[in-house]
Amino acid sequence: MTTPTPVLLFGLGPIGQRIARLAAAREDLRIVGAVDIAPALTGRDLGEVLGLGRTLGVAVRAEPGAAPEGCVALHATGSSLERMAPQFRALLAAGYHVVSTCEELAFPFFHHARVAQALDGHAREVGRVLVGTGVNPGFAMDTLPLALTATSERVDHVRVERRVAAASRREPLQRKIGASLTPEAFEEGVRAGRIRHVGLPESAAAVAAGLGFRVDRIEDTIAPVIATERLTTQFLTVEPGQVAGVHQVARGFEGARERVSLELVMSVSVPASVDRILLKGEPDMALTVEGIHGDTATASITVNAVRSVATARPGLRTMADLALVHR
Amino acid sequence: MTTPTPVLLFGLGPIGQRIARLAAAREDLRIVGAVDIAPALTGRDLGEVLGLGRTLGVAVRAEPGAAPEGCVALHATGSSLERMAPQFRALLAAGYHVVSTCEELAFPFFHHARVAQALDGHAREVGRVLVGTGVNPGFAMDTLPLALTATSERVDHVRVERRVAAASRREPLQRKIGASLTPEAFEEGVRAGRIRHVGLPESAAAVAAGLGFRVDRIEDTIAPVIATERLTTQFLTVEPGQVAGVHQVARGFEGARERVSLELVMSVSVPASVDRILLKGEPDMALTVEGIHGDTATASITVNAVRSVATARPGLRTMADLALVHR
Repeated sequence: MTTPTPVLLFGLGPIGQRIARLAAAREDLRIVGAVDIAPALTGRDLGEVLGLGRTLGVAVRAEPGAAPEGCVALHATGSSLERMAPQFRALLAAGYHVVSTCEELAFPFFHHARVAQALDGHAREVGRVLVGTGVNPGFAMDTLPLALTATSERVDHVRVERRVAAASRREPLQRKIGASLTPEAFEEGVRAGRIRHVGLPESAAAVAAGLGFRVDRIEDTIAPVIATERLTTQFLTVEPGQVAGVHQVARGFEGARERVSLELVMSVSVPASVDRILLKGEPDMALTVEGIHGDTATASITVNAVRSVATARPGLRTMADLALVHR
Repeated sequence: MTTPTPVLLFGLGPIGQRIARLAAAREDLRIVGAVDIAPALTGRDLGEVLGLGRTLGVAVRAEPGAAPEGCVALHATGSSLERMAPQFRALLAAGYHVVSTCEELAFPFFHHARVAQALDGHAREVGRVLVGTGVNPGFAMDTLPLALTATSERVDHVRVERRVAAASRREPLQRKIGASLTPEAFEEGVRAGRIRHVGLPESAAAVAAGLGFRVDRIEDTIAPVIATERLTTQFLTVEPGQVAGVHQVARGFEGARERVSLELVMSVSVPASVDRILLKGEPDMALTVEGIHGDTATASITVNAVRSVATARPGLRTMADLALVHR
């Protein structure tokens, strides 16, 4: 057994707490700190906050403090790269490597090139690694399709279809995808930015960059899935004609030629979650996965990525830059 | 466009020539040398040897010579680590990184620990990377299952089933799996070491090590697939009762508990190739791939791995140590 890697938990919202629980259960990790700005949490023992039934000897504080050698901050506070960038800079400056669930960090070089370049420069300067991960973006619609191309001679087109059975998921997710709204309220939610899966264009950009596609344009469209029958979950009921979920598509183009098409359906009308990847090229390939668990997958991959940080080069990295992330 | 990576082709048998053709077609690689010991090849231009209809300005020679900076040798001469070790040592000493199709190199730490340790020490000493790859071992039954566990909270058991439709493959492969032999001749071929897929125990060891299973024993069994009807390929006919192919199983145990089970069927009776991965744990997952192309996949992944060598740490590495290998 090698020495456990020290980790800091940064952000103790629902995802951050899941990450914390996984980290607390791992023999190869040692929790050395926990940070959250909520006054209700600061000062309390992390084990108590997590409801573990035991203390962890780690008091939640409002600031990270200086990093022990080789410490990895597990960051889970938000999706927007612009808004998270100051947190990343502060963590890097304090000496932490950072693995974050920030969706726009997963592949920021296309849509947020300037912020990405600045963060990359900063991370290199201080000799630390910064990387975004998660199930989506971070795995199902970018890293896994790229991994599948390992035996490809040539890839002409990548199509990924991800269908998420939202009926068994937590209430905030069912609300986030617009379930039980009228189509009009759904459109209003989209316009207001309340309804949207963040990260699909980032996944399209990651796939394109990985495969050397010279994609100059990424389209991102969003539409409601309309229920054709009454659908009932633990939290809500959807009547026929109401919204059951979201249908989002990101497409990457080289001029007029589509090279990447990512289609995400998250809906309480989807009977079972399934991921499907279709490669056109030499050879054509088709991959199907059943069972990726949406609620725990992002927390798991964040914790699983820690091992690969140790061998990564300093800078802003992507999942494809890391040594293979696995349990 | 970054500067192309210089590559040396080492071994120009069937797989080596496939690798050479792929390398010659890639803009990101530059062939700087080609080595084969066959007197019929030495002195001839590589383009002519490959039948490209053009010269490449690279004469096949019997020795590699000194490596240009950052040069990667693509090694494809044999399956046995013991027999290949002197070639690896010579290439590393001459300054080459090495990506090899040698099956026993894919994960040599369990079955060939002493040789592996020596090669690792030598590679570190000279600051070069040595890594084994291929479709199997190297991808379908080890790297891909490990990649699937990225979102796993816990993995209890890994099962992989790989079925290869051998009827459409080249004649030497059909002969190697015993197609058209009597069961007695098959057993004789197994005893003589002529019939056996090399690398299955290595894949089992790679999966176990990646997931932290404390596997202390790996069983490797081989049995014939017996034809129940007449089967005809371009090269041979199998009568009912004769051998259609090989059924090989590698199982890894922690004490009495099975943790890994890899089942490989290569047979002219298999109608279509398919790979299936089943994870038991939290959560259970099932993955199916159709279309991995046996004949070109090993050559493709060898060429695709070159990019990841540049960022790998010196030493004997495995596919899981490298930055994600993709097209």
